[in-house]
Amino acid sequence: MIRTPRSTGVHDALASLRAIPLPPTPLLPLEIGGVRLHAKVESLQPVGAFKIRGAWWRLTSLSAREREDGVVAVSSGNHAQGVAWAAKRLGIEATIVMPRDAPPVKIEATKALGAKIVLYDRPGEDRDEVAATVLEAQGGTLVHAFGDPWVIEGQGTAGLETAEQLGRNPSRFVVCCGGGGLAAGLALACPDSAIVPVEPEGWDMLGQALRRGEIVSVGEPKPKTICDALQPDATKPINLGLLLGRSDPGVTVSDEEVREAQRFAFSRLNLVVEPGGAAALAAVIAGKVETDSDTVVMLTGGNVDPERFARTISTGTMRGRAA
Amino acid sequence: MIRTPRSTGVHDALASLRAIPLPPTPLLPLEIGGVRLHAKVESLQPVGAFKIRGAWWRLTSLSAREREDGVVAVSSGNHAQGVAWAAKRLGIEATIVMPRDAPPVKIEATKALGAKIVLYDRPGEDRDEVAATVLEAQGGTLVHAFGDPWVIEGQGTAGLETAEQLGRNPSRFVVCCGGGGLAAGLALACPDSAIVPVEPEGWDMLGQALRRGEIVSVGEPKPKTICDALQPDATKPINLGLLLGRSDPGVTVSDEEVREAQRFAFSRLNLVVEPGGAAALAAVIAGKVETDSDTVVMLTGGNVDPERFARTISTGTMRGRAA
Repeated sequence: MIRTPRSTGVHDALASLRAIPLPPTPLLPLEIGGVRLHAKVESLQPVGAFKIRGAWWRLTSLSAREREDGVVAVSSGNHAQGVAWAAKRLGIEATIVMPRDAPPVKIEATKALGAKIVLYDRPGEDRDEVAATVLEAQGGTLVHAFGDPWVIEGQGTAGLETAEQLGRNPSRFVVCCGGGGLAAGLALACPDSAIVPVEPEGWDMLGQALRRGEIVSVGEPKPKTICDALQPDATKPINLGLLLGRSDPGVTVSDEEVREAQRFAFSRLNLVVEPGGAAALAAVIAGKVETDSDTVVMLTGGNVDPERFARTISTGTMRGRAA
Repeated sequence: MIRTPRSTGVHDALASLRAIPLPPTPLLPLEIGGVRLHAKVESLQPVGAFKIRGAWWRLTSLSAREREDGVVAVSSGNHAQGVAWAAKRLGIEATIVMPRDAPPVKIEATKALGAKIVLYDRPGEDRDEVAATVLEAQGGTLVHAFGDPWVIEGQGTAGLETAEQLGRNPSRFVVCCGGGGLAAGLALACPDSAIVPVEPEGWDMLGQALRRGEIVSVGEPKPKTICDALQPDATKPINLGLLLGRSDPGVTVSDEEVREAQRFAFSRLNLVVEPGGAAALAAVIAGKVETDSDTVVMLTGGNVDPERFARTISTGTMRGRAA
């Protein structure tokens, strides 16, 4: 039973989020390189990331029977918290498969939301296999982090909200990409807006897929990145299908460019943004993306390890607010 | 020529801010001690503090002749940036008298906005005397940080905005207080809402004034506090007049309670809040203030010194997001 993601589904998802109610995240003005643009601050969601949108919409769309059987998700932390948050509110049992090297704050937060955690070793085990084993043992519905029609529609609500706040569709969304769930959702929600994916160096599996027109998997040994939230092995056909012809291959950013963006968000916007959530901002600051006054930069998550964040803001060049 | 602050003035001020446009700051849901309440996040203003409201309204209300003569302000940093920001946009020359021990980031940010800075030594010199000397030498209008009718009306716009976002007047505003400009503005804007001032230990000059019904000045030697933004020597009659009979004397918070609140804002809300901006939140977390679902906690500013902030988040107990 395949569902095609629909723009009407995005509108339905937004109505469902408003009914919780989950208030819109702020759209803040900011200026970079003399251009005034906008930041959509998804790091201020109750779970600290946009993932709450898709998780909520997927879980509310389950049948009564499916709800009884519980859900299983695989995530390094933000989708985990989104699913756990929605599951807790809906009284659904959630089992989350997480890499053992996920940020401890993300594992703890997911546990605190009442989810059952199954840890796996990122380099050795295949996370989809771990999830399959869990599903076989206990049943339930897999809530994929990005390759799921409801999840994509749910993430798209960030686009509808942005358009409402801006008073028009943005010229472009500059968006941090892992598997491409948010990017696909934005493409669905705002057909007039360009989508510019930003990925960590070495992890541009969406960019490569868009370039080649087919799914590309990350090679071994897997590259290192500080963007723990942006390391899926490959995008999925459903995401690629929505983005092909709609989106440039986008750009990549280095760890140091990401840290620079975290410092910018800290010192100029008073925001805590995690590495993976700062990738799009990093690309704009580095001048890798064309911008105009209708450009919207997605700040997708803010769940940082305190000590790592303390190191990031204590080193490097800090830009003054009005510099 | 005395102006009486009026609630109609607050409405006019809000219209003026919307015309810039200065978008509303977010009202975020949060949960403390099992109670769901709201945080008004003024640390996300373009200058990182609510002070932009009163400064803008004061400066736009100057006559053409007054604008030509420039403005003078005394501030440890946030009012300074508010005045400098408004002055820059309106093409007015601004001279800001700042204590030499103000956070360097605040001095730098004020300079970067184009203001002329005059530094004084906090313990030795009287800042009002320094300002008087500057005014005598160069003329211009003094923009007082809190004891000014336009400034009070301007700060009150935060109350109108909050009521709009909440759909009703809050039951109470828990508000960080220095001289009482914001508290007086909120009292004016939302006549149905209780005002609960929160001040640093030893600096409860507003609380003492409310208790005695007359202005009380801080004694010597001045107490130490990490809340650099909340150290006025005394409130002013205009503020006391608006708050007497409207506001409890409020509560005080310790440096450690303030740091705890900064860590809470960091780990639970992904927000950077400065010590003085976290005082109200500190009082709520410490259980010193009664709360309900219509309580609004003002997070008034976020301009922190990076190294001090890094130390704050690296020490003490960090609360998990969902703890």
